[in-house]
Parts: sequence; C-alpha cells; structure tokens
Amino acid sequence: MRFGRIATPEGMCFCTIEGDGDDIANLTAKEIEGTPFTEIKHTGREWPLKDVRLLAPMLPSKVVAIGRNYADHVAEVFKESAEHLPPTLFLKPPTSVTGPGAPIRIPSFATKVEFEGELAVVIGKPCKNVKAADWKSVVLGFTIVNDVSSRDLQFADGQWARAKGIDTFCPLGPWIESDIDNFDLDNLPIKARLTHDGETELKQDSNSIQMIMKMGEIIEFITASMTLLPGDVICTGSPAGTEAMVDGDFIEIEIPGLGKLGNPVVDA
Amino acid sequence: MRFGRIATPEGMCFCTIEGDGDDIANLTAKEIEGTPFTEIKHTGREWPLKDVRLLAPMLPSKVVAIGRNYADHVAEVFKESAEHLPPTLFLKPPTSVTGPGAPIRIPSFATKVEFEGELAVVIGKPCKNVKAADWKSVVLGFTIVNDVSSRDLQFADGQWARAKGIDTFCPLGPWIESDIDNFDLDNLPIKARLTHDGETELKQDSNSIQMIMKMGEIIEFITASMTLLPGDVICTGSPAGTEAMVDGDFIEIEIPGLGKLGNPVVDA
Repeated sequence: MRFGRIATPEGMCFCTIEGDGDDIANLTAKEIEGTPFTEIKHTGREWPLKDVRLLAPMLPSKVVAIGRNYADHVAEVFKESAEHLPPTLFLKPPTSVTGPGAPIRIPSFATKVEFEGELAVVIGKPCKNVKAADWKSVVLGFTIVNDVSSRDLQFADGQWARAKGIDTFCPLGPWIESDIDNFDLDNLPIKARLTHDGETELKQDSNSIQMIMKMGEIIEFITASMTLLPGDVICTGSPAGTEAMVDGDFIEIEIPGLGKLGNPVVDA
Repeated sequence: MRFGRIATPEGMCFCTIEGDGDDIANLTAKEIEGTPFTEIKHTGREWPLKDVRLLAPMLPSKVVAIGRNYADHVAEVFKESAEHLPPTLFLKPPTSVTGPGAPIRIPSFATKVEFEGELAVVIGKPCKNVKAADWKSVVLGFTIVNDVSSRDLQFADGQWARAKGIDTFCPLGPWIESDIDNFDLDNLPIKARLTHDGETELKQDSNSIQMIMKMGEIIEFITASMTLLPGDVICTGSPAGTEAMVDGDFIEIEIPGLGKLGNPVVDA
C-alpha cells in the first residue's frame, strides 16, 4: 500500500495513493482517518493526485542517517578506503525535511551543495534493541530521501549537522510504500538525474547491493542506542555520483517501486 | 517565572514552580493550562513539589548543541588549541532527553561515559535568521543540560550523534527560568559534582564568561541554517572538568538561579 500526505483546499491529511504506476496523472489520493500507524480507514474523500499537493509523506521526530555506507561514495568524498572509514551515524533535524517538488533553498554560506539519493526507511512502531533478523517488524515502509549536503561546510565543521541540516536539505517522498517484501534489497537500483542548463544527466547509477551495513544491521545498530518512534526516518546511505547543484537546477532521485523524488534548486 | 513539567497521580502537565530558593521541600507546583508558550493561566490545581515528579521541563523537537565552546574543554578532550578547533554544531535526538532524578543508563558498548554540565536555552517561538542582538526575543528561558557523552564512541565514530545520542544521555531540568534578564552571561558559574563511592567531588567549576561563541552569536549561527521551534533546546557547550561516570555514581550540575540537575548513573 502507498501512503502519502497531501495539502488539499480543505487542509492537510494522510492518504493512500491508488492506481498503477508512478505517473501522478493516473493516481488518486484517498484520505484516511488519522495516521498510517493504525488500522486504515478511508474517510470517503478523494482527489485526483494531480489536483492536490504531495507533502513530505511523514514529519519525523528524528531523521537518523548512516554515513559512508557505500564504498564508492566513501572513496569519492573522503579520498579514503571504506575499510579505514567504516559507516557512521548522524542526525538531520526534522526542520530540514521538505516535500516532493518543493525547492531546495541554498543559503549563500553553504557552498558545494550536493545531492545524495538514498533509500529511506520509515519506522512503524516504537522500538529499541531490535535484532537484525526482526527489522521488518518495526518498519512502516520505504520511501526516497535526498540527503542534501554542503560538502564545504561538512569538512569545515567536522560535525555534519549543519552541512546536512539546513532547512529544505532533506527532501522526502513522494510517498511511503508499505509492501516492503516486494523489494529485493540485494538488487535495488538507485538513480539520480541532475538537470542543469536544460541538460539532464544521469549522475548516480548504483544499487543497494553495495550497502556496507545492510538493513537489518542498520536497524540493530541504531536501536541499540536510540529508541525509534513511529514516523522516524532512517537514511541508509548514498552511493557514488554526488555532485554540486546550483540555482536553477532540478534534481530527481528514482528508485523502482518508490517512484521519483524531484526538487528544484534555488538560492535562498 | 519558573516553568516545570510534572507527573502527578492524575497525569502529566506543565506548571509554574512557586516559592523561594531551589529546595524542593519548599516549592509548590501550580498547574497551567496548555503550555508555557501562550498566556499563562493556572487551572487552580497545585501540589507540593515534593509530592509529584519533575520531568524534563520540555520535550524538544530538536536539541541543537554547540561543541568546543570552552577553550579549556577543547584542550582537555581534543588535545588541541581552540584556535585550531573552532566551535561546531551537532544534534542530540529528542529520545535522549530525560528528566531530573532519572537514571542515566549506560549500555555496555558505550565506554568512558562522561558528564558535561551546560547552560541550556529553551526557544519560545518559531524563528529563523535571528540577529545576535535580538536573541532574547526568541527565548522562553534557561535551564540546565547534561550533555552525556561516551568519549570512546565519540572518537571511534567521528560523528558524535551516537556517542551523545543514546537514550537518557540528555538530562534536562530541573525547570525553565524565564526571567533571563536576571542572569549575567558574562559571569554565570557552572559547577558539576560527581559522587563516586560515597565521596562527592567538585569536578567542573567554570563560568559562562569562558564561552567562545556568545549567546547572541550562537542563536544567529544556528538560525542562519535551521528554523528553531518552540521548545527546541540549545546546549551552549561544556567547560573543562568532564570525567567518566560509572554505575552507582550520582552526577549533579548546578547553575545559580537555575537550581541543580542531579541524576544517578546505572548500567543499562
């Protein structure tokens, strides 16, 4: 099932997204009562998806991210082998989350701002000390995240919270797919296409098979330290191919089965 | 005015704390309607503070912290001069927040877990791009925070999110003092006393005058990147004197005008 969050003329609500494929022109948003964390009941109100605005599908209480989880990305960013720089954990603030289609706003002090297309996990229930084998039991579904990062601030600050935590630096969406058994995490393509000066180029063209820390390990690792709450988001790491974006660009991340997360880039 | 959050036999609520001094035996908790962010109206219900349980005075949507903001602490932890390691920004997850008196629970993998007594700021209104001179206009009040940190994980991970983000690693309280004009930030003592094996020793004995980035600069710096929301907490940095705590210890931070934040330490 696909869950979204939408702005309609009457307000904001969670909904299911009904219809085949990822083309918004063919999809319908059906409002649900409350949140996707309880039994799903439709209210009866529905809209063609093209007539409403998709918001970030969740407002998480925290966004926990695994850094350095793809060896090729470690090499390109840190000029160092992943063997010597193992995966690490960092946080993005909830205020950095923005929705599909919403602009990524770059303040002047944030230079070399790069996209990072990633598979995101949305947590479905409060959990602590989850064993790797049980990870599916705590997950609501998957979505796409763009872990936008000012590479210059990241290295200047040492800590990544500011470089990756600026308002709008966490596009999330377009919706949450709860049928996670349909995904083969040993073979899930992740692609990012950057449109610059009217030319669109494939920049990230990778696969989840390259993840160093696998999904079960990630959730065991995080929940050994932190309680995760319903709606919390885990960013599972970016593959290689990240590149700077500038005002006027458009960045689109695609993961088969999850659709496309596209955002324009503007100067703040 | 002093604001607290309490657990009573009837539930949890915000309250004002009435009475003189910091001794809980002499104070009264008076329930308020809603939150401290709007006009304060008492409901008429009140309890002797000793008969209810003080909780963390706020559940923040984010905890933003300034690292390396006291030169003497930079030297003791990083073995490097603050000139070469300027203040940096990091995040603690909301799930790490715990209340006065609640145990700091140390999991076995978190070694060399140290206290860091700090002045904390609680934000009173949504704000972005606040100028340093205007910082008081966005602040609800001050409280005390203990930025508990596993020094070993901090250096092993590189990023500090896990070392400082473990559940219970952010004791906050005992209450929020909104009369911020009564504090001289150029001369505010910060003390931490550690009780180990029945012996209590003064470990941190510093003063806010040593802050490298001052309050206005901190709030301007953070809000240039991130929107702050009502209830968000800023940890303004730890002075020197931090030291490891172990099961059975008791750690108490004291800042004049804000009372004492004390927590027992236990193995998780």
